[in-house]
Amino acid sequence: MTDDDKGVTVLGLGAMGSALAGAFLAAGRPVTVWNRTPGKEAALVAAGAATTGTAEAALAANRLVVVCLQDHRSVHEVLDPVGDALAGRVLVNLTTGTPEQARELDAWARERGAEHLDGGIMAVPPMIGTPGAFVLYSGARGVFDAHRATLDALGGSRFAGADPGAASLQDLALLSGMYGMFGGALQAFALIRSAGGSATEFAPVLREWLGSMSDFVTGSAEQIDTGDYGTGVDATLAMQAASYVHLVEVAESQGVGTELLLPLAGLMDRRVADGHGHEDITSVIELLVGRRSLNEIEGREN
Amino acid sequence: MTDDDKGVTVLGLGAMGSALAGAFLAAGRPVTVWNRTPGKEAALVAAGAATTGTAEAALAANRLVVVCLQDHRSVHEVLDPVGDALAGRVLVNLTTGTPEQARELDAWARERGAEHLDGGIMAVPPMIGTPGAFVLYSGARGVFDAHRATLDALGGSRFAGADPGAASLQDLALLSGMYGMFGGALQAFALIRSAGGSATEFAPVLREWLGSMSDFVTGSAEQIDTGDYGTGVDATLAMQAASYVHLVEVAESQGVGTELLLPLAGLMDRRVADGHGHEDITSVIELLVGRRSLNEIEGREN
Repeated sequence: MTDDDKGVTVLGLGAMGSALAGAFLAAGRPVTVWNRTPGKEAALVAAGAATTGTAEAALAANRLVVVCLQDHRSVHEVLDPVGDALAGRVLVNLTTGTPEQARELDAWARERGAEHLDGGIMAVPPMIGTPGAFVLYSGARGVFDAHRATLDALGGSRFAGADPGAASLQDLALLSGMYGMFGGALQAFALIRSAGGSATEFAPVLREWLGSMSDFVTGSAEQIDTGDYGTGVDATLAMQAASYVHLVEVAESQGVGTELLLPLAGLMDRRVADGHGHEDITSVIELLVGRRSLNEIEGREN
Repeated sequence: MTDDDKGVTVLGLGAMGSALAGAFLAAGRPVTVWNRTPGKEAALVAAGAATTGTAEAALAANRLVVVCLQDHRSVHEVLDPVGDALAGRVLVNLTTGTPEQARELDAWARERGAEHLDGGIMAVPPMIGTPGAFVLYSGARGVFDAHRATLDALGGSRFAGADPGAASLQDLALLSGMYGMFGGALQAFALIRSAGGSATEFAPVLREWLGSMSDFVTGSAEQIDTGDYGTGVDATLAMQAASYVHLVEVAESQGVGTELLLPLAGLMDRRVADGHGHEDITSVIELLVGRRSLNEIEGREN
């Protein structure tokens, strides 16, 4: 059963919730909106959305209910009083939270007779509904498949796994990667600026370079899954650790902070000291996850 | 005057030097190679390179001399005894080093009647001569222009500036950006692996995400150059600092190391505490370069 001809209820009309409701409207879906604090629905109503005086009435309006609130606590503050109205509904929670919170909400929703998907939105509000946006979903695959056509209005829909916490975990993993790239870019710009250079002139070179270096992601994934960090290595960890010293030294001599550089230096040095200098830099992940953890997960021999 | 019909001498036949010589040969240039320790030239000689018994003879063979050795000290160990043979030569130093070392070598080479370019190779040896490789050069623009056609055999040639240290500085800046991205990707994979997920399955999502988030480089460059971090901000620093806490908490609860995450958290928190929570995350660069340094560079009013 699909809901291709059905509407969507959106609870929560902050910047993101409003963007979600707007994207459903733009895709031609009937949309009912509700917000704890009234007054945020005007623009959406002008664009064709219905609104209700109570959360209960909003839940009654459509089977598919998308929730996007401040945090996990807000979700319970809004839904706990109207739990009975969730029976037979499909609750898609797009509120940012942890995997543990997603699992808790999943159990809670099921107890009330609702189906549940937890999602992680990989976009800022202005990107919602554009090709650059995508949303990760986790929960029952069948529920995802049944509502995917509707959810695709927000951006590309990606199924992250049956564990309700999977979307949150992948969301946080992607953000971790993003912030690493941001920190690296800021460190690069700081060095350029310390010498009086133009960030704007340097930006295209930096961007192209990061794009070509993103091959690392594909190559390192294979190494991580196989546990083989030592085959076909062009620049060994020992070589990279040695040249990384230049980055730190030159930052210091330029008066640029080194706090973003030092932790990776520490990991590289420890890994070289542990006898892994001939391996690829990817092997420092063993110090992040912990060798024991990886072995426990994989059942690998040490 | 160009050297389009002339050959190239390559001093230093490590993995990178050999790749450089091979790329010149592949582009149809006459190449003369020399290495301190004999025996590394065989494959290049088989491919058409000439070799000489002494560095002096190698310098005599061609006007354009590309040097790629272990480090700055090696460059002086090789060139100091044959300084007289440098007169009238164009010394292109592609040995990895610091801006200061590049400036020192520039002065030293000029004293001996040589022209000099310092370069930073943005590639590993197997990439040399492929479209993915590029090399930054700094020094006299006219020298760069005169030899660019020859140097293009190595990969795209980019002029970094007249300061002999500019190529090294941009090289180190690009590497800083790259290592930030690497660290972020490893943090992301560590989180996925901690939950028993497949890095290989996750890699395409991570790579696409990092690609779309690289818009950050362009946007932040404009902010840095204008000093305006507060206009048109979608996700404020205060919001990002608050949600960044999830990254740290979930990494901890998954048993994943947080050392790569914490320094940026510290910068964000300090910047918010300083009253810049409404700005973009780019504004943390002020804590890396230091507000005073930026003002000194720019002559900005505080």
